[in-house]
Amino acid sequence: MSIREESLKKHYEWKGKIEVIARCPVRTREDLALAYTPGVAEACLKIRDNPDESYALTRRENLVAVITDGSAILGLGDIGPEAGMPVMEGKCALFKTFADVDAFPLCIKTKDVDELVRTIYLLSGSFGGINLEDIAAPRCFEVERRLAEICDIPVFHDDQHGTAIVVAAALMNALKVVGKRLSDVRCVINGAGSAGIAIGRHLMNLGLAHLTMVDRAGILAAGETWMNPAQAEMAQVTNREGLRGTLADAMRGADVFIGVSAPGVVSPEMVASMAKDAVVFPMANPTPEIMPDAALAAGARIVGTGRSDFPNQINNVLAFPGIFRGALDCRASCINEAMKVATSYAIAALIPDGEVSETNIIPSALDPRVAPAVAAAVIRAAKETGVARK
Amino acid sequence: MSIREESLKKHYEWKGKIEVIARCPVRTREDLALAYTPGVAEACLKIRDNPDESYALTRRENLVAVITDGSAILGLGDIGPEAGMPVMEGKCALFKTFADVDAFPLCIKTKDVDELVRTIYLLSGSFGGINLEDIAAPRCFEVERRLAEICDIPVFHDDQHGTAIVVAAALMNALKVVGKRLSDVRCVINGAGSAGIAIGRHLMNLGLAHLTMVDRAGILAAGETWMNPAQAEMAQVTNREGLRGTLADAMRGADVFIGVSAPGVVSPEMVASMAKDAVVFPMANPTPEIMPDAALAAGARIVGTGRSDFPNQINNVLAFPGIFRGALDCRASCINEAMKVATSYAIAALIPDGEVSETNIIPSALDPRVAPAVAAAVIRAAKETGVARK
Repeated sequence: MSIREESLKKHYEWKGKIEVIARCPVRTREDLALAYTPGVAEACLKIRDNPDESYALTRRENLVAVITDGSAILGLGDIGPEAGMPVMEGKCALFKTFADVDAFPLCIKTKDVDELVRTIYLLSGSFGGINLEDIAAPRCFEVERRLAEICDIPVFHDDQHGTAIVVAAALMNALKVVGKRLSDVRCVINGAGSAGIAIGRHLMNLGLAHLTMVDRAGILAAGETWMNPAQAEMAQVTNREGLRGTLADAMRGADVFIGVSAPGVVSPEMVASMAKDAVVFPMANPTPEIMPDAALAAGARIVGTGRSDFPNQINNVLAFPGIFRGALDCRASCINEAMKVATSYAIAALIPDGEVSETNIIPSALDPRVAPAVAAAVIRAAKETGVARK
Repeated sequence: MSIREESLKKHYEWKGKIEVIARCPVRTREDLALAYTPGVAEACLKIRDNPDESYALTRRENLVAVITDGSAILGLGDIGPEAGMPVMEGKCALFKTFADVDAFPLCIKTKDVDELVRTIYLLSGSFGGINLEDIAAPRCFEVERRLAEICDIPVFHDDQHGTAIVVAAALMNALKVVGKRLSDVRCVINGAGSAGIAIGRHLMNLGLAHLTMVDRAGILAAGETWMNPAQAEMAQVTNREGLRGTLADAMRGADVFIGVSAPGVVSPEMVASMAKDAVVFPMANPTPEIMPDAALAAGARIVGTGRSDFPNQINNVLAFPGIFRGALDCRASCINEAMKVATSYAIAALIPDGEVSETNIIPSALDPRVAPAVAAAVIRAAKETGVARK
């Protein structure tokens, strides 16, 4: 049986990958009087008088909504909100297992930006944080930006920032191995959607100076008419040499390739045209832009993918559980750049300098040390930047 | 320590009365491949091709949203959505404990009817049913009616129908004791809000012919200018004698009094003015319209209240867990009148005719036989009326 067939069978058996249980007894009269009427009125009034008490008196302090509109589910595209639910439930199971965060999946039946923003805002009082998931670009940028402005709880689009944070951690360690500095390397990102743009922005926050971004139509360059607003904005701050052309043109002489695009779009010749000691992260899933063996054979020194069956798996699960654990624990009002940067450093630091190697640049996605280390780094950064509320 | 003080202390200890847990393992690489990528894609595609598969492949079949706008929380009035959450969480704990229904609480930050309806509709694909809770009248009528029209899952405003169903069950048994028929008795309902109007409608569906409704401003009668549209509608089908006046006027000679109004508004004299063998349900909570001892001393033969410290507790928890258990199990598209009627009969039937007495007209709120009996009756009625989808 294939993995997908076996997974389907398991899904029919599980009957849902999350469950909502009671944390208080309600079996006796006294139970009812304490957990429900008349006793509960006192907790209600406490929150009415001070809404912050909702964190202490309800599940809010440990509760994150995992929200999608179903428009960019895995590599499957726009399959609708109901069909996105198995992914959202899986994400919630990861949140609980890796960081003891209660996460609840919601699939919203609209793709209108105004409606998505308004709907999520109207629900935000019931949660301690919001994890946006699998919302298509460029809509996702505006949805996240507007929600972050109006909500007083953290809003985090994992496809953007989770990916960016983990890629950056892997790249930091890879550059240690090859002895290059982030501020010196020439980096190419292929795929200028939500993940690609977020990776670019985050790496520049970390010190990357020479970045070229490429999408289906070619290199992002000021004046290209095919770009959407988010791409046009990136074109302003990348591609210093004013290159125009194809992915092959961009990769010539580059030190780093990061792919969040499509299977097989990178040829061995393109990798061979890169600089010495090239770092190649072809992360299209499940089939990478170029298979690791081919990339290594073509001259790459370090390869990382999204897959668990090759070394250096670059997986979001390294970031989001610990990030929300930390943000909830210090009741952060947002997840800011400092917290994202701190997360990349914390993940990278889990591989001691002496152990970093071509096949060991990033911890295992299943390493139980990761979430606590990330949470601690997030709390520190939140406090330093004044966004922690306790 | 008072119940309310002790309850507050418990709420601080519980840190939430619900919790979201994982039902699938995600600790190993194989786990991840089955519960998440790449395996999960197969479940997503199944649902994309047939949205009904969402019931089999996600938690939907067992999942109800408990939703409020915080506008009519307990007897506390409009205390806002966050402050309503302890009640919603308590309700969810009851759903799980009494009927193994996963229920998730959502407090929506708007009181605009259009926005409430739209927001809840946009979320409806993530749930198998919607329990509306503590939404103020008359807004609640329109919210429920419009949602029932556009959603293909059951929508149920418990403050209306749950209360009505349980009152009717208690009244059926009370009338057995006093030897009167529902179609003959004169009934007065005081409080023409969401619960009062729903009780009136439901009792009329069951055969009540002589009903007079009263609100703060007096008896509901055609032509009164103070009535809201829902009250005006009730005035058309009640008060056959065209009475005008006060609650005292309405109660004179009545066989049944049902109060969903305010503490202490019924005097012993009013009860004394009722017909012989009067049935009195003063259900204002926690302080009834008249205390049971006073009502009995004034001549009432049977008294039921919302309180657990007197006989005949009329409590919604007798209805909603079993109703949703049944509706989910047969995948009902709605909760129709036949299902509500069947629930009243099922609850009443749990007290065998030989055991019905002045102090035993309704099962205990904690009786574990209730939810299964209600679920079975709901499924039967759903199948008979063609709204069951499996």
